[in-house]
Amino acid sequence: MRNSPATALEAVRAVIAEQPFTQLLGAHVASVSDKSCELVLPLRKELTQQHGFAHGGVVSYMADNAVTIAGGLIFQAPVVTSELKINYIRPGIGDSLIARAECLHAGRSQAVCRCEVYAVKDGEEKLCAAAQATIVLLGEPKD
Amino acid sequence: MRNSPATALEAVRAVIAEQPFTQLLGAHVASVSDKSCELVLPLRKELTQQHGFAHGGVVSYMADNAVTIAGGLIFQAPVVTSELKINYIRPGIGDSLIARAECLHAGRSQAVCRCEVYAVKDGEEKLCAAAQATIVLLGEPKD
Amino acid sequence: MRNSPATALEAVRAVIAEQPFTQLLGAHVASVSDKSCELVLPLRKELTQQHGFAHGGVVSYMADNAVTIAGGLIFQAPVVTSELKINYIRPGIGDSLIARAECLHAGRSQAVCRCEVYAVKDGEEKLCAAAQATIVLLGEPKD
Amino acid sequence: MRNSPATALEAVRAVIAEQPFTQLLGAHVASVSDKSCELVLPLRKELTQQHGFAHGGVVSYMADNAVTIAGGLIFQAPVVTSELKINYIRPGIGDSLIARAECLHAGRSQAVCRCEVYAVKDGEEKLCAAAQATIVLLGEPKD
Repeated sequence: MRNSPATALEAVRAVIAEQPFTQLLGAHVASVSDKSCELVLPLRKELTQQHGFAHGGVVSYMADNAVTIAGGLIFQAPVVTSELKINYIRPGIGDSLIARAECLHAGRSQAVCRCEVYAVKDGEEKLCAAAQATIVLLGEPKD
Repeated sequence: MRNSPATALEAVRAVIAEQPFTQLLGAHVASVSDKSCELVLPLRKELTQQHGFAHGGVVSYMADNAVTIAGGLIFQAPVVTSELKINYIRPGIGDSLIARAECLHAGRSQAVCRCEVYAVKDGEEKLCAAAQATIVLLGEPKD
Repeated sequence: MRNSPATALEAVRAVIAEQPFTQLLGAHVASVSDKSCELVLPLRKELTQQHGFAHGGVVSYMADNAVTIAGGLIFQAPVVTSELKINYIRPGIGDSLIARAECLHAGRSQAVCRCEVYAVKDGEEKLCAAAQATIVLLGEPKD
Repeated sequence: MRNSPATALEAVRAVIAEQPFTQLLGAHVASVSDKSCELVLPLRKELTQQHGFAHGGVVSYMADNAVTIAGGLIFQAPVVTSELKINYIRPGIGDSLIARAECLHAGRSQAVCRCEVYAVKDGEEKLCAAAQATIVLLGEPKD
C-alpha cells in the first residue's frame, strides 16, 4: 500500500531530520511525489568556496540527497546511493539551491534517478548542475 | 617555473583556507606532489547521515576537493571541477576520511583526475569511494 | 544565422555518412531540432552479445553519437564528446534501437547533453539506457 | 576453487567468441589475471569516424567489454555492466587499441572496475580514454 503524499512527505522529513549533516547544512524537503522530490537549501557564507559560490561539495550533496530521497520514495524502504555523476553547469550563486530529483526507472532492487540543481536569486532559477545516479535498495528486493 | 613541493603545499593550503565550506567541515591538505594530493577530514557526528556513517555528500566533497587540488597543481592556476563521477564502495565509518587524488592526463585547458577516498579506523584504511573527474582551467589555457 | 530544420537534418546526415563505423553499424538520423536529435539503428545478429541482446558497446555507441549530434546542432560547428556516463537499464532486445538526445545547457565552448536509448519491439518502446555527457566545441568558442 | 590463469583465459575467450559484435569488430583477449584483463582491437577504416580516428563508440566498446571481463574474472560467473563513465582523452589513432581493466573492489554482487584504453602506433602507447564502471553479478550473489 502506498503512502499518501502528505504521509510520504512527513516520512521523508523524519528521515532527513535524523541526518546530522543535513542539519548542519540546513536543507529541507519542500515537496515529494511518488517518485520525485524537491530539496531546498538556503545559502550562507559557510557553504561557499573561495570565490563566494556554493562549494561543489554542497551542490553535489544536494544532488546526492535528492536522488536518494527519490529512490526511497519509489521503494518505500531504506536505500543508498550506489554511484552518482554530476555535471557542474553554472556557479551556485544566489539565495538558495533547489534540487529536483526524479526516478527514471526502478527495477527490483535498484533505480536510476536524475536530478537538476538550480540556484535561486531574487526568485529567478538558474540551472547550476545536472546529475544521474543509481540508488540501491538495502536488504531484500521488493516483490 | 614549478613551485617547490613545500611552496606548492603552502599555496594549496592558502586556497583551502579561503573556502568557508572546507573550514566548516574541517578538512586539511596533508601532502601534495606536482600532480597529486592527500586531503584529510577528521570525522565527527555532524558529518554523518542517519546510520552514523559519513554522509555521501561529505565523501563526495572530499573527492571533489581533492581532484580540484590535483588539477590546480598540474596547471598551477585557478581551476574548477567541470564534472565528477563517484562510486560509493563502503560506508564511511571511522576516525577520519583520506582522499588521494592524482592527475591522469592534462591537456592545454583540462585534466582528467582520479581519486580514492578511504575511511581510517584505528590506523587501518578501507576504500570507501572511487571517483573520476574533469578539471577545467579558468581563464587562458597554459602554454 | 540558424539553419532551417531540413537543412540541419541534411547537414547532420552528411556528417554521419562520413563515419565508416556508423555505416558498419547501419544507424541513421531520423529527425533533428535545434538542440535535439533522434538516431535509429535496426538490430541484427552481428550487433549482439552472447545472450542475443544488443551489445553494451552498441547501446553506448547510440548514446555517444546522439549526444554528439545534439551538441553539434547547438554549436553548428564540429564537436566531440569529451566524456559520457551511461546507465544500462534493460537488455536491448527488439527490432531496433532509438536514441533521443537533447542539449540541457550550452556555454561558449561546451554543452551538457542527455540521451535515452529505447529498444523497439513490435512498435513498443522500452527504455534500455540513459546517458549524460559533455560535448566540446573543436577550435574556437562561439561568440 | 579458482581457475588457473590459462583456464581463465580460455574461459574468457570462449565467452568473447560467442559475442557476434566482438567478432564484427575483431577484438581479442590478450591476457587475464584473477581480476584484470587486456583486450586488443586492431584498427581498420571501418572502425573510424569522419576524421579517421577510432569512433568514440569503438573506444567505449573496448572499455565496456574489458570491465565486464574483469568483473567476470572476479565473480567467476556471468555478469553485466550496470553503468559506465568514460573520459575521452586523445583521439584513437594508430594500429590498434588496447584496453586494460582491473577490478578495484568486489562486494557480494557487484564490483567497481576501472579501465584505461590506449592507442598503439608503431609500438608506442598513448592513453586515449579512462573509464570507471559498476559490474553486476547475474543471478545469485557469491558466498
